[in-house]
Amino acid sequence: MAVNRLGSEEKIMNIPLTPLRFLRYAEQQYPNETAVVCGDLRLTYEQFADRANRLAGAIRNARVAPGERVAFLSTNCHRLLEAYYGVVAAGTVLLPLNYRLSANELEYILKDSEASLLFLEQEFLPLVDSFRERVSSVRAFFLLDGQPSAGWLSPRNYDDTLLEATPYVPDIMGIEEDSLAELFYTSGTSAFPKGVMLSHRNVYLHALNTRVALHTAEHRSLLHTIPLFHANGWGAVHANTCTGGKHVMLRRFIPSDVFRLVEREGIETLHLIPLMASALVNSPDLGKHDLSSLEWISIGGAASSPTLLRLVEKKLGCACFAGYGLTETAPVLSTARLKPGKTMPEEERYKTQAMTGYAIPGVEIRVVDAEDRDVPRDAATMGEVIARSDGVMLGYWRQPQATSEVMRGGWFHTSDMATMNEEGSFLIVDRKKDIIISGGENISSLEVEKALEAHPAVREAAVIPVPHDTWGEVPKALVVLQPSSNLTELELIEFCRSSLSHYKCPRSVEFVESLPKTATGKILKKSLRRKYRGESFGSEFA
Amino acid sequence: MAVNRLGSEEKIMNIPLTPLRFLRYAEQQYPNETAVVCGDLRLTYEQFADRANRLAGAIRNARVAPGERVAFLSTNCHRLLEAYYGVVAAGTVLLPLNYRLSANELEYILKDSEASLLFLEQEFLPLVDSFRERVSSVRAFFLLDGQPSAGWLSPRNYDDTLLEATPYVPDIMGIEEDSLAELFYTSGTSAFPKGVMLSHRNVYLHALNTRVALHTAEHRSLLHTIPLFHANGWGAVHANTCTGGKHVMLRRFIPSDVFRLVEREGIETLHLIPLMASALVNSPDLGKHDLSSLEWISIGGAASSPTLLRLVEKKLGCACFAGYGLTETAPVLSTARLKPGKTMPEEERYKTQAMTGYAIPGVEIRVVDAEDRDVPRDAATMGEVIARSDGVMLGYWRQPQATSEVMRGGWFHTSDMATMNEEGSFLIVDRKKDIIISGGENISSLEVEKALEAHPAVREAAVIPVPHDTWGEVPKALVVLQPSSNLTELELIEFCRSSLSHYKCPRSVEFVESLPKTATGKILKKSLRRKYRGESFGSEFA
Repeated sequence: MAVNRLGSEEKIMNIPLTPLRFLRYAEQQYPNETAVVCGDLRLTYEQFADRANRLAGAIRNARVAPGERVAFLSTNCHRLLEAYYGVVAAGTVLLPLNYRLSANELEYILKDSEASLLFLEQEFLPLVDSFRERVSSVRAFFLLDGQPSAGWLSPRNYDDTLLEATPYVPDIMGIEEDSLAELFYTSGTSAFPKGVMLSHRNVYLHALNTRVALHTAEHRSLLHTIPLFHANGWGAVHANTCTGGKHVMLRRFIPSDVFRLVEREGIETLHLIPLMASALVNSPDLGKHDLSSLEWISIGGAASSPTLLRLVEKKLGCACFAGYGLTETAPVLSTARLKPGKTMPEEERYKTQAMTGYAIPGVEIRVVDAEDRDVPRDAATMGEVIARSDGVMLGYWRQPQATSEVMRGGWFHTSDMATMNEEGSFLIVDRKKDIIISGGENISSLEVEKALEAHPAVREAAVIPVPHDTWGEVPKALVVLQPSSNLTELELIEFCRSSLSHYKCPRSVEFVESLPKTATGKILKKSLRRKYRGESFGSEFA
Repeated sequence: MAVNRLGSEEKIMNIPLTPLRFLRYAEQQYPNETAVVCGDLRLTYEQFADRANRLAGAIRNARVAPGERVAFLSTNCHRLLEAYYGVVAAGTVLLPLNYRLSANELEYILKDSEASLLFLEQEFLPLVDSFRERVSSVRAFFLLDGQPSAGWLSPRNYDDTLLEATPYVPDIMGIEEDSLAELFYTSGTSAFPKGVMLSHRNVYLHALNTRVALHTAEHRSLLHTIPLFHANGWGAVHANTCTGGKHVMLRRFIPSDVFRLVEREGIETLHLIPLMASALVNSPDLGKHDLSSLEWISIGGAASSPTLLRLVEKKLGCACFAGYGLTETAPVLSTARLKPGKTMPEEERYKTQAMTGYAIPGVEIRVVDAEDRDVPRDAATMGEVIARSDGVMLGYWRQPQATSEVMRGGWFHTSDMATMNEEGSFLIVDRKKDIIISGGENISSLEVEKALEAHPAVREAAVIPVPHDTWGEVPKALVVLQPSSNLTELELIEFCRSSLSHYKCPRSVEFVESLPKTATGKILKKSLRRKYRGESFGSEFA
């Protein structure tokens, strides 16, 4: 019951916005269509929904109360996809874990979230066994594949558990749309991983918003190239189920498998990170398969380049554009797909499509200064990207202070620095904390890194600020050279001066063997900054 | 502030779901794109939004409080479209009036709604003048076009009022999404018109749902063929603004104008009633214009036929399918567009596309018996269509009892009788009250009418129940013949027997000069039923 503004007390028929409605709809309208393809297994929506309902029943059998967390440690498999509906249908919270994390990171996350159940694949048994005794909240461990042998595992495996369970079908009307549905931990390049709390409403509206922004009414097959624990991966799940689309699972990213599945399953859309896109266009298997079903490829997770987009469009024969989002925003905020009706010369088009893009429907983006005032839309002035959207998380799990900090003024602060042009398209230039402020000027560490990496002898570079008496900070470069290169510091700085303003060029270059990285391959600049300021590493994950 | 299920009191960033967000987004992302084309006038989204904001300012200047009703009596014009945003931005409720209604119907609606302001076009001045003194709630009358002369009109016309007003831009975050945004009166074939209350959330989610069901990401131009006071007309407004689409206004439905505008403006989608579709395919102007921009045409408002759909597809060269909805459901509930990936032989396809269709995303449809139990999905058993969707109205204006009645059990009862097939597609067979129950068998009056109208001498037919001692009710036909036909009652009944079961055939036929109809052309069967039962007409509109 809600009282409307007219003062009358009529009952309002608001159907809770929950992703469970997507599966319910697909089950009703597309019962005999293929929902999931996983290896040799094909499940119709009727079968898939039944399995999800049985998972919900099994979780309730395990006496896990609504709101408790249920963790999954799994590669991209139909069982993990079932969890996106089954765990939530049980009233519990889905927690997909990043299997590339170290044992101590996983232990931290399971402890922090106080997960009650953990479902895992066989290959992660040794990893989980190494810390499971210290994670007291987990009451049962379920093996997703194969037969359990270790005593600490539930005696029945996942499929048997489902077979024995009674399907549980929740009443959609009883769901609180603002309650927690999914919990994802951020990768933690700068601190301990934080749990990002997404509500039913967050993920429901995000799916509709991305559908309006990106999809056609005919959309019906998606290849899950990116691990589903990653925002770029799970962000596409619900938008695909929404109209009975086919989910094709990909356990490991192997270009020949991608091509084979695109051809066999008539895949229409892919979400890739730039590394995957490079792997596809450079694969010797390209050309062996019919890829004509591909409609578009969206690239996210890291900056793209016009060159890469051109290669993808030419070699894979479909539209390719960048996108941007964060775990905290459910995730998509922007797309660089050309706006409807827009045309431009090819070179300009690739450049535009490689930008961070423009806000999709349902999203507002601003680029602001330190006082949250909009910076000029001049494609030059840097500011922080802030966003308001239906996808913005409930907050960080049990971190009200960190939540208030990023949510200040009613806008989510991304910590990404960008410029914005007249048309509202923006371009991320750096992470806020990686900006170097030298003599009052902002220097994008990414821009300097790009200049360094343009030198053929440079394999990888990281640019960080180091203290300076006159300028406050100056840029310092840490560079990994190509094997058997004998480039000198002076030569490299000279090289930078050919493309960068003087004040942006590194004051010093240090050649190193490797750069510290997270499990997902992001350079840990915070570690580097600390090291070169003489600070200790602390307890940060590295 | 909302408390989430975890008990913590984090602030939840729920952006209210309001159609004002669509215009805000279009203004930000498509400021220089054409928003509206109306005659020779073209407005960009920046200009259109400015005008809507000025209208909001003018309404606030007129000291109209939030929640009060602002009525518009206008043909399809950019000013009426501005009201869809300006009136709502002012915090007031938009009430678009059907200009085909009689003076006493309009008077009734203005009194019932207690409208505070009335904006009208010059051509409706005599109509409004005839009852305005009896409508005491209206504090000011504004002339939309031309210059006011009558003393009871506001001294300044609409455009001047806008010029003088200060734009008012409401804080989206302050809007209550469940509050009333739009009020539409149903056409009243069976009783006094009832005000249908739609919330901000209703119309917002309806727009997203129809986008997911029908549109492509490239969608960008719509011709407003149907008057915007009609569900079939206003239902398309927000879905078009949502991504900066172009609204092309059509004041009167004249086929040559439609063709000319489709060509000139690159129109992609049309919503038509069957009569309009017939007029287009039979127009002598067909073939004089390039219609290749047309992507699809949706037909609603009355039953379509496979023949009509085929004609439209062949002659206009685009997809054509039926759709179904009601004012009470914001409006679209179903589409008969083929489901993604579905193909079938041409004849079957036209038949399928002429059905009432299947529930669009966000909508659940059931066909139920008198106890709200689902009837078999056998494409034969009749039942009432009931629906649950994000678009279902808040209720009828100041009619809690009528509201409870149609909302019983948490489902909106449409009073439409239908059959449903295995795949969840349904077909309306009649209005509930028009079903004839003869010897315990349900007879669809529509089915009998179709059988009658298949005779070349029959121009129009209405079938109603009349009391019968043995069978309870039997069907009686009222028939308008083609000029100079001399068909007899017996001949016509015989003709029916060639296509209908015996019990469904009319027991008697009465030839009449004409049939009573509503302003929108619907046959007033209630009047006929009363007449042939010997009841008086009462105070019903006719």
